[in-house]
Amino acid sequence: RINGDRLWDSIMEMAKIGPGVAGGNNRQTVTDEDGEGRKLFQQWCEDAGLTMGVDRMGTMFMRREGTDPDAPPVYVGSHLDTQPTGGKYDGVLGVLAGLEIVRTLNDLDIRTKHPIVVTNWTNEEGTRFAPAMMASGVFAGVLDQEDVYVHTDHDGKKFGDELERIGWKGDEEVGARKDKMRAFFELHIEQGPILEAEGKDIGVVTHGQGLSWTQVTITGKEAHTGSTPMPMRRNAGLGMARVLELVDEIAWSHKPHAVGAAGHIEVYPNSRNVIPGKAVFTVDFRSPDLAVITDMEQRLKIGAKKICEEMDLGIEFEKVGGFDPVEFDRDCVKAVRDAAERLGYSHRNLISGAGHDACWINRVAPTAMVMCPCVDGLSHNEAEDISPEWARAGADVLFHAVVESAGI
Amino acid sequence: RINGDRLWDSIMEMAKIGPGVAGGNNRQTVTDEDGEGRKLFQQWCEDAGLTMGVDRMGTMFMRREGTDPDAPPVYVGSHLDTQPTGGKYDGVLGVLAGLEIVRTLNDLDIRTKHPIVVTNWTNEEGTRFAPAMMASGVFAGVLDQEDVYVHTDHDGKKFGDELERIGWKGDEEVGARKDKMRAFFELHIEQGPILEAEGKDIGVVTHGQGLSWTQVTITGKEAHTGSTPMPMRRNAGLGMARVLELVDEIAWSHKPHAVGAAGHIEVYPNSRNVIPGKAVFTVDFRSPDLAVITDMEQRLKIGAKKICEEMDLGIEFEKVGGFDPVEFDRDCVKAVRDAAERLGYSHRNLISGAGHDACWINRVAPTAMVMCPCVDGLSHNEAEDISPEWARAGADVLFHAVVESAGI
Ligand SMILES: NC(=O)NCCC(=O)O
Ligand SMILES: NC(=O)NCCC(=O)O
Repeated sequence: RINGDRLWDSIMEMAKIGPGVAGGNNRQTVTDEDGEGRKLFQQWCEDAGLTMGVDRMGTMFMRREGTDPDAPPVYVGSHLDTQPTGGKYDGVLGVLAGLEIVRTLNDLDIRTKHPIVVTNWTNEEGTRFAPAMMASGVFAGVLDQEDVYVHTDHDGKKFGDELERIGWKGDEEVGARKDKMRAFFELHIEQGPILEAEGKDIGVVTHGQGLSWTQVTITGKEAHTGSTPMPMRRNAGLGMARVLELVDEIAWSHKPHAVGAAGHIEVYPNSRNVIPGKAVFTVDFRSPDLAVITDMEQRLKIGAKKICEEMDLGIEFEKVGGFDPVEFDRDCVKAVRDAAERLGYSHRNLISGAGHDACWINRVAPTAMVMCPCVDGLSHNEAEDISPEWARAGADVLFHAVVESAGI
Repeated sequence: RINGDRLWDSIMEMAKIGPGVAGGNNRQTVTDEDGEGRKLFQQWCEDAGLTMGVDRMGTMFMRREGTDPDAPPVYVGSHLDTQPTGGKYDGVLGVLAGLEIVRTLNDLDIRTKHPIVVTNWTNEEGTRFAPAMMASGVFAGVLDQEDVYVHTDHDGKKFGDELERIGWKGDEEVGARKDKMRAFFELHIEQGPILEAEGKDIGVVTHGQGLSWTQVTITGKEAHTGSTPMPMRRNAGLGMARVLELVDEIAWSHKPHAVGAAGHIEVYPNSRNVIPGKAVFTVDFRSPDLAVITDMEQRLKIGAKKICEEMDLGIEFEKVGGFDPVEFDRDCVKAVRDAAERLGYSHRNLISGAGHDACWINRVAPTAMVMCPCVDGLSHNEAEDISPEWARAGADVLFHAVVESAGI
């Protein structure tokens, strides 16, 4: 069993870097705070005897040697970046549980046959720079490194420049390791309500639902809110309001197999007395069923076009992120379920509602995920919360699954 | 008659300061660019023999002495600040036409009995700091100076601090002059379509419609867009969308006597994969009829509360700006109409759709406005446009009305 207190202390220590305004964290990707978090993690890993590799996307690979130096390593980890108003556990739990596995093996003086590599994937959240799971996407060969380097944040700063600025653009070719991975395991909080509601300790993640991010740009005409007669208006903000209503309708029509919302919304010039001439927002549709995602995307395009035509507004769509629904590796999933069973933790199968680095890595290596409950299913909120016991149970299961895969 | 070419050249010269991105201007109030524009205007005024007074709200009073030093001055002017994506004429025309009057009087070697004071009111636009017509509102005693000093912009900067920073917080007590004003005249572009559509040179502004700005804050719960089931969502962005639809319905229901829209919209934390936990936006309702404004405000509150109750969202309302419909001084209005008639310009009565500094000053001194057409009625847009002939006609009428009031 891992040391639950030590794991918890490390999580609390990491949470001091990039504190939020309401008890959570704001440690967004490739900010100074991200750099500070990485340094602390590096220090802890080196203290535990691990050696570091960093790839050109900034992903950190912290390696513990195995007894067979040629054996492909078992990877374990998640991400240290957070939402702008994020929680202390989303991502962090999975990375620090990986470190805790290594610390426990050190305590027990156990050497595994296969090396173990604790991994911190860059820009999982996708808030500052779309898309989410950016570095694991490049690693898996589904995103293009040169393309994502020039993705910009709200201030026009480029991802690649910011990665360089914080000093974490490494030398290693991204994805060079992908043919020599025995497995990848990721522990994550559920971010949904099921485990807590059913009183289960562990979620055995069999599938991940798919995602589609469509950035919608509606163009009208900037004009004075006071002196422009109602019939002459081309109000892009009002067009957006009607499309947001449509997004909600479309998602509900596939209940319970889909969700939809827009979290990112901007109007221009955003002045109290100017009718918005432009509205830009990102529609997030998800479902475990690819056909449902495709249907939602199409209905959004057709319906939003119709709304805008009737209002004499222009509309454009750009796909800025997405992945198909995922089925995780059956052997790895079984290793997770067997570990939970062996340790006496209650468990159930889960479909992940959120995207995870594991979803991309599953394309290049046998992959599975462990989930633990979180209070009220709440995540992407500073009030995100878990109990130390939940964290401990999740890390114990992760430990057993990883060690089984790595062999003794 | 005034010198139309000189007026036009000055407008084009001023437009070089704080250029926009599409041919217009971004010279928002109490920015460095505003400071630069003020300096240029000061220089021009001093070259024309005027002496400067600046009050604690930064309003510039550029005085040309009259033959009777004790006679109350005639004021003429408007504002030099612009929208973030504003035109070259909104406000600027009225200030520089005031200067052109003085230059013309100098050319003609005419001294009026009453002094003439060309005025640049601070923060007319109200974009960076609500409310609009801020300095004239304090001058007229309807806004409180200490209160507006601490109003903040999007970055949390305070109006009073920024005014001081750019070096334009004057010594003069605000409103000290208000009991010694013979009249105030303001020339402005119409910002609406009527004059151009009817081929009239001049609008004789008899009334101004009233305004109500209500800032609405809707609170839901930040949560993950992927893993939060639809029935558990409290989406503040979706609530906002429904309220925006309501605003439009309410305005149309009073057609043609009302308008309504929201130009300012923000959601928090504004992350693609976070259901908005908060939405803040400002509803702009206007009508020439006070009862209609009151009705619209009330229906917004009742209707938006109902929408939010049904969605389990919180809602709060804050009035951040507004003024009652205005009837301008009959004698001053007559002076404008007589001037247009005398000069042979076609004209018609107008109700101003926009708010103007004249609306506040009308409470403390006899006031009227002159309007000239603008292309397509378009304003608060970088493409805002007028012809040199329209500017010349407006300034000619302003000249005659001012000189008649100031006496020779
Ligand atoms: N786990 C998580 O919140 N990932 C961010 C990507 C997503 O929006 O699903
Ligand atoms: N004239 C003008 O655009 N003033 C700004 C205040 C308003 O919104 O009416």
